[in-house]
Amino acid sequence: MKSISRLVLNEDRFFDPTPAVKTIARKLYQSVKNLPIISPHGHVDPTIFVENKPFTNPTELIIIPDHYIFRMLYSQGISLESLGIRPLDGSSAEANARKIWKLFGQNYYLFRGTPTGVWLDYEFSVVFGIKKRFTGETALEIYDEISEKLQTPKFRPRSLFDRFKIAVLSTTDAATDALEAHKKIRGSEWKGNIIPCFRPDGVTDLKAKSWRANIDLLSERTGIEVTSYSRFIQALENRRSFFKSMGAVSTDHGVSSPYTHEFTQGEAERIFQKALKSPATSEDAAMFTGHMLMEMARMSIDDGLVMQIHPGSDRNHNRVIFERFGSDKGSDIPMQTEYTRNLKALLNKYGNDPRLTLIVFTLDEATYSRELAPLAGHYPAMKLGPSWWFHDSIEGMMRFRSMVTETAGIYNTAGFNDDTRAFVSIPARHDLSRRVDANFLATLVAKHIVHMDEAEEMIYDMANGLVKKAYKL
Amino acid sequence: MKSISRLVLNEDRFFDPTPAVKTIARKLYQSVKNLPIISPHGHVDPTIFVENKPFTNPTELIIIPDHYIFRMLYSQGISLESLGIRPLDGSSAEANARKIWKLFGQNYYLFRGTPTGVWLDYEFSVVFGIKKRFTGETALEIYDEISEKLQTPKFRPRSLFDRFKIAVLSTTDAATDALEAHKKIRGSEWKGNIIPCFRPDGVTDLKAKSWRANIDLLSERTGIEVTSYSRFIQALENRRSFFKSMGAVSTDHGVSSPYTHEFTQGEAERIFQKALKSPATSEDAAMFTGHMLMEMARMSIDDGLVMQIHPGSDRNHNRVIFERFGSDKGSDIPMQTEYTRNLKALLNKYGNDPRLTLIVFTLDEATYSRELAPLAGHYPAMKLGPSWWFHDSIEGMMRFRSMVTETAGIYNTAGFNDDTRAFVSIPARHDLSRRVDANFLATLVAKHIVHMDEAEEMIYDMANGLVKKAYKL
Amino acid sequence: MKSISRLVLNEDRFFDPTPAVKTIARKLYQSVKNLPIISPHGHVDPTIFVENKPFTNPTELIIIPDHYIFRMLYSQGISLESLGIRPLDGSSAEANARKIWKLFGQNYYLFRGTPTGVWLDYEFSVVFGIKKRFTGETALEIYDEISEKLQTPKFRPRSLFDRFKIAVLSTTDAATDALEAHKKIRGSEWKGNIIPCFRPDGVTDLKAKSWRANIDLLSERTGIEVTSYSRFIQALENRRSFFKSMGAVSTDHGVSSPYTHEFTQGEAERIFQKALKSPATSEDAAMFTGHMLMEMARMSIDDGLVMQIHPGSDRNHNRVIFERFGSDKGSDIPMQTEYTRNLKALLNKYGNDPRLTLIVFTLDEATYSRELAPLAGHYPAMKLGPSWWFHDSIEGMMRFRSMVTETAGIYNTAGFNDDTRAFVSIPARHDLSRRVDANFLATLVAKHIVHMDEAEEMIYDMANGLVKKAYKL
Repeated sequence: MKSISRLVLNEDRFFDPTPAVKTIARKLYQSVKNLPIISPHGHVDPTIFVENKPFTNPTELIIIPDHYIFRMLYSQGISLESLGIRPLDGSSAEANARKIWKLFGQNYYLFRGTPTGVWLDYEFSVVFGIKKRFTGETALEIYDEISEKLQTPKFRPRSLFDRFKIAVLSTTDAATDALEAHKKIRGSEWKGNIIPCFRPDGVTDLKAKSWRANIDLLSERTGIEVTSYSRFIQALENRRSFFKSMGAVSTDHGVSSPYTHEFTQGEAERIFQKALKSPATSEDAAMFTGHMLMEMARMSIDDGLVMQIHPGSDRNHNRVIFERFGSDKGSDIPMQTEYTRNLKALLNKYGNDPRLTLIVFTLDEATYSRELAPLAGHYPAMKLGPSWWFHDSIEGMMRFRSMVTETAGIYNTAGFNDDTRAFVSIPARHDLSRRVDANFLATLVAKHIVHMDEAEEMIYDMANGLVKKAYKL
Repeated sequence: MKSISRLVLNEDRFFDPTPAVKTIARKLYQSVKNLPIISPHGHVDPTIFVENKPFTNPTELIIIPDHYIFRMLYSQGISLESLGIRPLDGSSAEANARKIWKLFGQNYYLFRGTPTGVWLDYEFSVVFGIKKRFTGETALEIYDEISEKLQTPKFRPRSLFDRFKIAVLSTTDAATDALEAHKKIRGSEWKGNIIPCFRPDGVTDLKAKSWRANIDLLSERTGIEVTSYSRFIQALENRRSFFKSMGAVSTDHGVSSPYTHEFTQGEAERIFQKALKSPATSEDAAMFTGHMLMEMARMSIDDGLVMQIHPGSDRNHNRVIFERFGSDKGSDIPMQTEYTRNLKALLNKYGNDPRLTLIVFTLDEATYSRELAPLAGHYPAMKLGPSWWFHDSIEGMMRFRSMVTETAGIYNTAGFNDDTRAFVSIPARHDLSRRVDANFLATLVAKHIVHMDEAEEMIYDMANGLVKKAYKL
Repeated sequence: MKSISRLVLNEDRFFDPTPAVKTIARKLYQSVKNLPIISPHGHVDPTIFVENKPFTNPTELIIIPDHYIFRMLYSQGISLESLGIRPLDGSSAEANARKIWKLFGQNYYLFRGTPTGVWLDYEFSVVFGIKKRFTGETALEIYDEISEKLQTPKFRPRSLFDRFKIAVLSTTDAATDALEAHKKIRGSEWKGNIIPCFRPDGVTDLKAKSWRANIDLLSERTGIEVTSYSRFIQALENRRSFFKSMGAVSTDHGVSSPYTHEFTQGEAERIFQKALKSPATSEDAAMFTGHMLMEMARMSIDDGLVMQIHPGSDRNHNRVIFERFGSDKGSDIPMQTEYTRNLKALLNKYGNDPRLTLIVFTLDEATYSRELAPLAGHYPAMKLGPSWWFHDSIEGMMRFRSMVTETAGIYNTAGFNDDTRAFVSIPARHDLSRRVDANFLATLVAKHIVHMDEAEEMIYDMANGLVKKAYKL
């Protein structure tokens, strides 16, 4: 892929311009550049690999599913409708994919200095072999070139999966999901390793949209009539077991706050029964979520599934957008998050147990050095997930490393997650992460903090070793 | 101005010492170095341009109005009286300007590594053409040299304004201000573009000093007897209209917290009536301020004035200093600030409206990447003001750019504000900002994150384009 | 010591690899490299200097007392027992020092990129003259080499103290401590300057372990029967006076929160009496601690002892570890900390008094630029302690300087503290601090922010001048 990317991408991109650092960074990066991609947490729709149909067009592939992209365009007054995002009420949205793409091209300058810009440059250049810069002028020409390629076998989902050297790709799935796509992939002749991740928010959060219906679906899926808290627990254990049989190695918990607290059996039963009868209060829901995190840790010790906590996002902050277009439209906003006191109950009960792996994420960078690195640098069960969402950028990843490593080392971190729903951005994101880590380590070598042979081991661990170990892959 | 500054100021100052970066930074900086200064938010006293009298002496010009300077000296045990700051009770203060200046010179080492030091070096060298370093030994010599120049026509306020190439300078004015100075400037033959900014804190904050008297003055200024909430709103609309007729393009709101919340008409009326009768409680005042921010956004949509929020300062933290010397004496201390939840009501109601421009500032750098960049990177109405007050320094501006750009880009920021009451520091502050931005962009170019032609467009936008657009200038 | 350290330690370690910076950093560092060590705050056991016996073995010297080391090993699933940490209940722990050391060596890679790794490399190389890298393979060989040296006179505590050029070493001692070791040192022919620091947490925190017994001990030590609040105050004044007579220059206060508040005499008496009778509530204890900080400031103005506040650690977060092994076992976790409002009462009452020196520390880096630098850059009494505990690392110290200096300058900081209980790490920690400061200043020089002659003065102050002034040494 080297020669075709020359016109846009520099081989030493993102490395420190100081020659003493750059030379080392380049060497470290080269040693991991071609390693397989391990993607233990993300949101790619597995159906695309079942059907393996050509992607419709560049707009449907790149713009429509990516809230990183339309968030930024929207912030500059470009309506979501004009980007082809369809309102829930069936009102019309722009249907001309080329017109949307052109508008995107004209506004591509907005992404200067952002990771989205960096990922897209990679996708254009390396994934699609485009030899010119993407601008308003070249947009349609590039559209046509990508369109044409998308119709060829090489650009079908499975081919790309193989070409991207993805060793394993985890999706994220509701506890009630039947995992039909996963079944079909496992039943097919194709060897792509796609695994589910158990995300029970829809049933553990008493305030989740359609919670009552989700509970009914949970009963249906498990054959266990969920009429009590104890049956609820039984049903969850049943589903975890099913997910595990389908290849799952982890669970994921998207919570407002990482608050943990253990109810007595009686308290849990009482609140659960109340919720079955009428909508839960926010207080009950928050307490119940805190309790369910404890339960999930307990179950993880039993069944070995790695537990992930993703807290701190105020989902659907913009009600206008949420009501018109639904969730995941770029208006989730981070909130200040507290871990030291909130995780205390869970860590005190289960954090000393080496059978548990608890991977904690944050959207609040102030907690890196203050709370998360000290916790991960002490409790055997706890590891730190990589810098997440708004922070999986060049500077964001660098801040993560420089604020975490001195207290927790690299060995209490869990490698890289791309966490994306944009399939073709996966190699771009892993490449960026490897470059940033190579550069981070090169700085340590150039400053004589670690030796080169140590850095060579570390870069392998940061690219592959740690993620394999943390997720038991 | 080049040759005279050689002895103290290096042409490449503040740029990254890595040659690959420095060369690019120098080039980018050169391209904006001589652009006009646009100063959309500040606190210079407009009277100086009405009178256009020579500045009295260096001490009155540089030390007395600048709490950045005497704050630092005070922290080292130097009394405000000895710096010529006069107590409110009429007690004496040092009156010998040369003696004060000498004391300042002897303690100038305290400003090493601070932006105040950097600005002062620029003022001495570039504004006043001093060819030696400022120290305790040279202080009086330099005093005399500046004094002499201040008596010449070239150093009168209007001449400096022109020489600084200030295209527009906004002052900050109480809602009840008659804008006499502005009227006189507009009525004069002088073409300096000095505009007011509508800052209604004195009437919207029910706990403001002299609130009741301010309300009476508001009645007097508008001819609307403010006996009810609805008349209060009417009077504010009247004043905004007057400010606009005087050239204002913006409003400004200095609040403890960016909390927003909408009262019913009845609630607003009830609390306002209560306040008219007896001093408001802190709770009522906080709620009312939150409501008034909503009202101000509504009015901005009507009249087009850009809305600024400056939250998070605990004003007059040191009561001893406040009671002896009054406000703005260097003891305002930042507090932790929350935006995601506090701005929710306002952004949900008005944030999707492209007619509104809401420029938000912070003194809490932890909110840059966590809250402010995500909000500005989504809501069309919201832009981020530059790093403010304690943070408009080299490292502070660099942190702003590196924590904001990856999420919000540069195009959701509002360019630079000097926010100063120290008139002669204006060119120093803009020069520093341009240098830091040039260096920031040079790093992006040297790391191959943006192309040089992109950086050339960006540096222009950061110096002039964005501020013009954000403030509709 | 130069030649023997060549194999492992680079002379330019930790400096910026950019030649323009490195050259300056090296020069600045050389100018302070051999200055005496001033250690005004730490936790070395003074008994070792009384007895002056050879240290038992490398494991007892380096691993057992250092929670930085076993914290990290524990986080990776290595039991404390296997590291020789003895449970309180008398259960067995590994007793074979060589076996423990071997385990440590095998896991030494965990410390890559951490300050502990950097300090240990220094200790091995410079203190013990080891000429090979420490790894699992070389561990036992190195053990033997250190063991042998520990038996020689050159490696006895007093000899090392002298060889380390420690000009003054402060211990940290309970208010009720009889300071027997200090008495013996002062009464001996040895000239090592070891002084106590008055830390009254055990009697001022009503929830402290054994508080009631501590009060009885306080009565015994002072001959003042502490049956009332006023006698409590009298007893504390008495102890402070005794500590001062033993060379103490400071007090230290380890509090959850820096909350300050002044009780009336009556309120203080009432709460104190309540606590004498039955265990205090958390609320009473928190309020009383806030009041006692005020009292301590008042006493400091009287007796001249420098007051230190170390807030923000959630001590013994891991109850399992605490109950099995006791305190200081690596499970203290930082919490978010607020200073602006919490210190207001104290600073308003005493912060303008130049007779008080209040040195404030933090574990919450978000407060550096937001609260601490603005406070220290205004109040004459307040100075900032260096980056502390989890943050006295290369990046941690750099963040401290870059977030504090622009607002508070370097002259409102208090130099470096090693704050260690690991005696042989003292020169390593001071060397690291001097290198980081030299590098910080070199960057300022290379960017033309300060002149070289200024940096030369500053590096001296950062290594020796500021700490001497702040602690009145």
